[in-house]
Amino acid sequence: MSTPRHRTAPEHTHPDDVPVLTALAALADPVRLTLVRELAGSPEWSRACGTFDVPVGKAALSHHFTVLRAAGLVEQRDEGPRRVNRLRRAEFDARFPGLLELVLRTEPSA
Amino acid sequence: MSTPRHRTAPEHTHPDDVPVLTALAALADPVRLTLVRELAGSPEWSRACGTFDVPVGKAALSHHFTVLRAAGLVEQRDEGPRRVNRLRRAEFDARFPGLLELVLRTEPSA
Repeated sequence: MSTPRHRTAPEHTHPDDVPVLTALAALADPVRLTLVRELAGSPEWSRACGTFDVPVGKAALSHHFTVLRAAGLVEQRDEGPRRVNRLRRAEFDARFPGLLELVLRTEPSA
Repeated sequence: MSTPRHRTAPEHTHPDDVPVLTALAALADPVRLTLVRELAGSPEWSRACGTFDVPVGKAALSHHFTVLRAAGLVEQRDEGPRRVNRLRRAEFDARFPGLLELVLRTEPSA
């Protein structure tokens, strides 16, 4: 029996396989929208999961990242103890042209 | 005291006053997406609320129309016993350019 890994690698869904309802639902949440906005303003792979300014606990944050991965919005990889992120901007744009631009340019509360 | 009306006129929100999260959440539902799609394919004011092919009861349908009005997606008016609908396509497009086109052209389950 092999030694268990510290944690399993995150599962991803490519944007091409994401239904439009899944994409809309992933973006229709204030915490996830903040994560997407902060990722859009950061270099790829520069942000670990704990570095986002969102008012939720660790379990909730993990759930939000799962939803974002399943919607093809975020890619994650483990670098030692850190799980780092990038926004899948080009692939998501190819699947849903204009959607990310729209949510990024509109004020969240406006 | 005046005679009570049969029912109160529906309240509307103009798309200009709709937060992007509200718009996304309104569209991120299979029943509401079907309503929007069917309205997009029908002449304005031609569809009464009971004419849509959605698998929900009257109370749920009424709730879905309330959400669509609050998101600036649908306008309703009473014509005798019928409440008829139109998609606020131009106004919604002006507020959220490309969003309706995106959800209308993407297959719901694809």
